[in-house]
Amino acid sequence: MNESSADALTQEALSHWYVRLLANGVSYMDASEVIPKVRSWREWCRLWMDRAAVREREAREMEEAGRMLSAAEAYVRASLAYHFAQFVYHEDIELKAEAQRRKVAAYQRGAPHLDPPAERVEIPWPGGRTLPGVLRIPEGAKGEDGAPCVVLVAGLDSTKEEFYTLEGVFHARGIATFAFDGPAQGENADLQLQPDFERVVSVVMDHLAGDARLDSSRIGALGVSLGGYYAPRSLAFEPRLKAGVGVCGPYDMGEIWEGLPALTRQGVCASFQTENEEQGALKSQEISLRGCLSGLDRPLLIIHGARDRLCPVEQAHKIAAEAGDSCELVVYEEGVHVCNNIPFLWRPLAADWLADKLDVDT
Amino acid sequence: MNESSADALTQEALSHWYVRLLANGVSYMDASEVIPKVRSWREWCRLWMDRAAVREREAREMEEAGRMLSAAEAYVRASLAYHFAQFVYHEDIELKAEAQRRKVAAYQRGAPHLDPPAERVEIPWPGGRTLPGVLRIPEGAKGEDGAPCVVLVAGLDSTKEEFYTLEGVFHARGIATFAFDGPAQGENADLQLQPDFERVVSVVMDHLAGDARLDSSRIGALGVSLGGYYAPRSLAFEPRLKAGVGVCGPYDMGEIWEGLPALTRQGVCASFQTENEEQGALKSQEISLRGCLSGLDRPLLIIHGARDRLCPVEQAHKIAAEAGDSCELVVYEEGVHVCNNIPFLWRPLAADWLADKLDVDT
Repeated sequence: MNESSADALTQEALSHWYVRLLANGVSYMDASEVIPKVRSWREWCRLWMDRAAVREREAREMEEAGRMLSAAEAYVRASLAYHFAQFVYHEDIELKAEAQRRKVAAYQRGAPHLDPPAERVEIPWPGGRTLPGVLRIPEGAKGEDGAPCVVLVAGLDSTKEEFYTLEGVFHARGIATFAFDGPAQGENADLQLQPDFERVVSVVMDHLAGDARLDSSRIGALGVSLGGYYAPRSLAFEPRLKAGVGVCGPYDMGEIWEGLPALTRQGVCASFQTENEEQGALKSQEISLRGCLSGLDRPLLIIHGARDRLCPVEQAHKIAAEAGDSCELVVYEEGVHVCNNIPFLWRPLAADWLADKLDVDT
Repeated sequence: MNESSADALTQEALSHWYVRLLANGVSYMDASEVIPKVRSWREWCRLWMDRAAVREREAREMEEAGRMLSAAEAYVRASLAYHFAQFVYHEDIELKAEAQRRKVAAYQRGAPHLDPPAERVEIPWPGGRTLPGVLRIPEGAKGEDGAPCVVLVAGLDSTKEEFYTLEGVFHARGIATFAFDGPAQGENADLQLQPDFERVVSVVMDHLAGDARLDSSRIGALGVSLGGYYAPRSLAFEPRLKAGVGVCGPYDMGEIWEGLPALTRQGVCASFQTENEEQGALKSQEISLRGCLSGLDRPLLIIHGARDRLCPVEQAHKIAAEAGDSCELVVYEEGVHVCNNIPFLWRPLAADWLADKLDVDT
């Protein structure tokens, strides 16, 4: 990665998230060609949108040739480039929104032709809104009472579309996946961040429990980054969740606020729709697991990276301490935030652990 | 990729092959951590073997925990690190051989637990030797008369184990794969390179035709790099091959000898077991498709990258010109050698094309 010509914000962004782009499906070619062109953070979004458009054109050509699986995967690739164009980008809100729209459109165009297909679900949400989600049920996942399923919970400024590579690890083990946009995420970016996210997951559970293709007694949750707070919290308050995994989430965001990257603090403020950073700092204190986990009676796996510079590993130790015997803690010494540098280690671990807890025969 | 501290040979190797490591399954983490430690090419093999040993230990731990799919994929990861440890490395022949052995052992340990399983096949070969191969038949590939299959043909200093990520693209389309080590490849590194490689492929075809799980009337071949010469040549001379794909192979190696990287010329000399480079230059002239393709009556797809600095794109045009109407030529403007920078474009294309020619319903 050549970032020598980029400005400070871009370098900061890359220092935290370069490996995330690769782990989640951006090609090394795109990363190595687009990034050196970024001279200031302001240009980031446009340059990635241009590259996304190239990938989208290729997808269209494959579609026109009737090569549907190839086209579907190419649309996901385009979608991911649009996603990272707008990721933690707040310089031009119109442009960010445009990238979001194109991301969703590109993904949706390929979705029915993916293997397994990605079925769009819209779960009603107060205010005439919906929680849009993506349900994928692999061929080999059909148990006697329906397929086991893992609800994938995104973090700050992440969305359902970014889970594509992670989903495959579950599908390979015969587990369905459901990823969705909650408040302040993706298609719901204009809704305020909701610290009591268990209420969101409960609405999702209502829907999944009514889908006869799924086994409602075998549903788990996995969240990454801020989702690594949402998922344990949901496990604690939503008894229908059989097990949960939190990856590099905070125990109490107020405690780590000062050490967060500038772009993340910006993102939290935008998600809470605060007037200024002082308000954001105050609101961040509402993101806390304190007192939520002590009575936990279902299994929780906490995965963290000792080299996480965004959410310090001490936060994982606090979660584990409060959850007690219900919690297993795995710390990877070499892991950065979301252990995005070692997806080949933590993802299979999380999937095998959930398979075990959801009684999936792998 | 930070190569500033590496010596000239290492920099040359990386300039040609860095993207190959990533395309074929080496993690970005390993590439970005191991490579900056390489100060001279002599150290390359040992440093990668050390990293491979770490990956192998992780695989062993997964295996001991009964996490068999995870373990299998981890063994492949270890195997690939051992593979690239010895790839185009001729500084220490004992060490190279040791890396080869460990590569094969690691792969073999995981093989039965991969999805689809990788079944080891040993096809008899003159001199009491065998052509060791890896047959993988995906669940969804079973046609009425058996599964369609693609024979994967490696190039110089490449082997059956390196095809792991490519194989998945075929399996996703319901096509079985067979990869093997021919003369001067992998476990047969001590046998001389055989320019009339169609004789090798014919022995492979004899075996595959006798496997009732495969449909002998639906077998194709795909070769990369020097395999991009072997596969078209085999298609020309072996009538049981229904279709063939050549990726970035030479039309006539003698024509491009002077422009080949030093490490590649070394590799050709080693594979021909010549005394010196002058002899290697002479032997390279035997690697030629001249006169082989003019009567071709089955479909051939030639894929090449316009930015291939190892095998110039003119070689692809010569192959296409000689093969005439039987040949389709696809040139990617941005593609380097084996189009390893754009695997997401050429691999689905090759797989879709072969699926079509082998009457696979995708």
